[in-house]
Amino acid sequence: MLKKPDNERLMAYMEKAKERAEYFIGYPIAQDFDYSELYPLLKLPLNNVGDPQVESTYDLNSRSLEQEVLSFFADLFHAPADNWWGYVTNGGSEGNLYGLYVARELYPNGVVYYSEATHYSVQKNIQLLNCQSIVIRKQENGEMDYEDLRQMVQMNRDKPVIILANIGTTMTEAKDDLSRIKQTLASLAVKNHYIHCDAALAGTYSALLNLEPGFDFAHGCDSLAISGHKFIGSPIPCGVVLVKKNYKERIGKAIPYIGTVDTTITGSRNGHSPIFMWYAIKKLGLEGLKQRAIESLETAQYVLNRFREMGVNAWCNPSALTVVFPAPSLALKVKWQLATEDGMSHVICMPGIGRAKFDEFFADYALYLSAEKVLV
Amino acid sequence: MLKKPDNERLMAYMEKAKERAEYFIGYPIAQDFDYSELYPLLKLPLNNVGDPQVESTYDLNSRSLEQEVLSFFADLFHAPADNWWGYVTNGGSEGNLYGLYVARELYPNGVVYYSEATHYSVQKNIQLLNCQSIVIRKQENGEMDYEDLRQMVQMNRDKPVIILANIGTTMTEAKDDLSRIKQTLASLAVKNHYIHCDAALAGTYSALLNLEPGFDFAHGCDSLAISGHKFIGSPIPCGVVLVKKNYKERIGKAIPYIGTVDTTITGSRNGHSPIFMWYAIKKLGLEGLKQRAIESLETAQYVLNRFREMGVNAWCNPSALTVVFPAPSLALKVKWQLATEDGMSHVICMPGIGRAKFDEFFADYALYLSAEKVLV
Repeated sequence: MLKKPDNERLMAYMEKAKERAEYFIGYPIAQDFDYSELYPLLKLPLNNVGDPQVESTYDLNSRSLEQEVLSFFADLFHAPADNWWGYVTNGGSEGNLYGLYVARELYPNGVVYYSEATHYSVQKNIQLLNCQSIVIRKQENGEMDYEDLRQMVQMNRDKPVIILANIGTTMTEAKDDLSRIKQTLASLAVKNHYIHCDAALAGTYSALLNLEPGFDFAHGCDSLAISGHKFIGSPIPCGVVLVKKNYKERIGKAIPYIGTVDTTITGSRNGHSPIFMWYAIKKLGLEGLKQRAIESLETAQYVLNRFREMGVNAWCNPSALTVVFPAPSLALKVKWQLATEDGMSHVICMPGIGRAKFDEFFADYALYLSAEKVLV
Repeated sequence: MLKKPDNERLMAYMEKAKERAEYFIGYPIAQDFDYSELYPLLKLPLNNVGDPQVESTYDLNSRSLEQEVLSFFADLFHAPADNWWGYVTNGGSEGNLYGLYVARELYPNGVVYYSEATHYSVQKNIQLLNCQSIVIRKQENGEMDYEDLRQMVQMNRDKPVIILANIGTTMTEAKDDLSRIKQTLASLAVKNHYIHCDAALAGTYSALLNLEPGFDFAHGCDSLAISGHKFIGSPIPCGVVLVKKNYKERIGKAIPYIGTVDTTITGSRNGHSPIFMWYAIKKLGLEGLKQRAIESLETAQYVLNRFREMGVNAWCNPSALTVVFPAPSLALKVKWQLATEDGMSHVICMPGIGRAKFDEFFADYALYLSAEKVLV
């Protein structure tokens, strides 16, 4: 039993967290999950340490379910049938780190090119990996400026090219176009290249709905990372990284201690997240997941229209769940946890955030707008 | 609802996992935890993204509880009062990666020295960080060979020294002696050095019981990493990394998107593990934790004596929970999930594994021994 003050502290925290979850429209995190059927497993220290495709003497794991999750995503992203490998990560950043790590092992003197709209963790990953990199200008919508890419690659023709493409940038959900990137590289006769897609934000629903531009293995990526706690939903951050198997085989080493091959970034690996993902995939099925994606896109259109009806200059990339608008007051940003950059904020219409929630937000927003008018 | 075959699959998995948890004495994972009071929080996507000491617009987090956990460990490890920083990681490996990352940023041309008994993930971290490294011979008990260290450093006097010291090696729970290491460096007039302690296995209970040799900030480490899912216990792998604050300030960058400073390895960070750790620390208290450590040491002595009574050449480092013995049959290794290396296996007397469980193991082991005799 907790002591009384500790217990009060915990109860107050739990109450506060529940309240804050009610005002959560600014980050791409689905909240309509329910894994309570799996809670008995939380008595067990599950650990998928090492390679998910290889058995381990640490038997208290969820490898077999993890494999099914990975197969689901390998199919979804058209990974080459006998030449893919992957694992369930602690989130998109770890997946990006893994993809870039594989790229660096293939091309130790490669230069990483990524747009200035790229998620901040990528820069950190590159620093960690000690790679040379060049930041490419973005277009106004957040997409990579391909002409700038062309010029920068042109100036470094002696070095292999590693591209970090965004499939949904953090702020505006812009997607870099792999076909434009590949054309650019082909026009410069670049033979040694590697494309990793950071599809953490938009990867899953874009693939479910076959949205353009395509970005998966069939479209030329060498590895990709998605988040599990964003579109699918999970209490614990998680994700999936997939990579062409012949590449990753340059990395793994057999480790007697765990009786398996270790090819992942971390050692111990959370065994619960793969079960959460397995459960969600099985429960919703492919059709259920598609339906969620369609509903989310419809909500985004609804939100965009509401803003426009109010005369607000809001906008949205094609088929995106992210609606961008001029940053409101600090009070509103804090209450609704709105990410803000360069004077712009956004809401992200994730599954489980219905129109009623946005109506509540717009009631606040209307008050803010009229207060603004009074001030002017 | 899951479809019938999926549900049967899940139920079978849950049954199997429960059964495997009954035969789990080969890895250093406590099982006597119960966080069921916290399960309501698993409806919420908590995320401690970014620096735990800085507020974020992603408000659905457990930063305040994480801070208390970090303060607890900063005290335990005698971190300098106004000069420490840390965060709750996804496990020991991430903590080691972070410590080595900080070391590399301080000493970009430093050489990492670590003993051959070091956890396999360290080698992977070093590869990831693109550092030069030298593997040092181990003594028979698994401790670093200080004479070999001296010779290797001597041959590289022009480069800063980064030491990865083990506070409990994976196989034999050997501890590298920081005072011997520091003497060695002093004798070679090495001024630029950094010591990171991988205290994942033995750090917490060694500090609780003030075991020799000391390894914390008062004894000269610059950063250290521990596991949370080992001695304390957690369904999800987790850990803590602590580092001198003036060092880590070379790394962090302010990120507008999350409205905070990002100084950790991953982006999104599990917000539930810090609450599990907070709960365990508050529930057990310092005295309760010490008591668990004492009981575990007593169990290890019991296990060692049982082996010796059976005439088995088992051994144990001083004040260690790991008992090493000649590897038994494959069947026994699989059933009891025994890690095995170079013909040796071990059991680890973690909290929550009582004598009754070991008696059950020894019943199996006695059968194995008599079968062996028949074969001879």
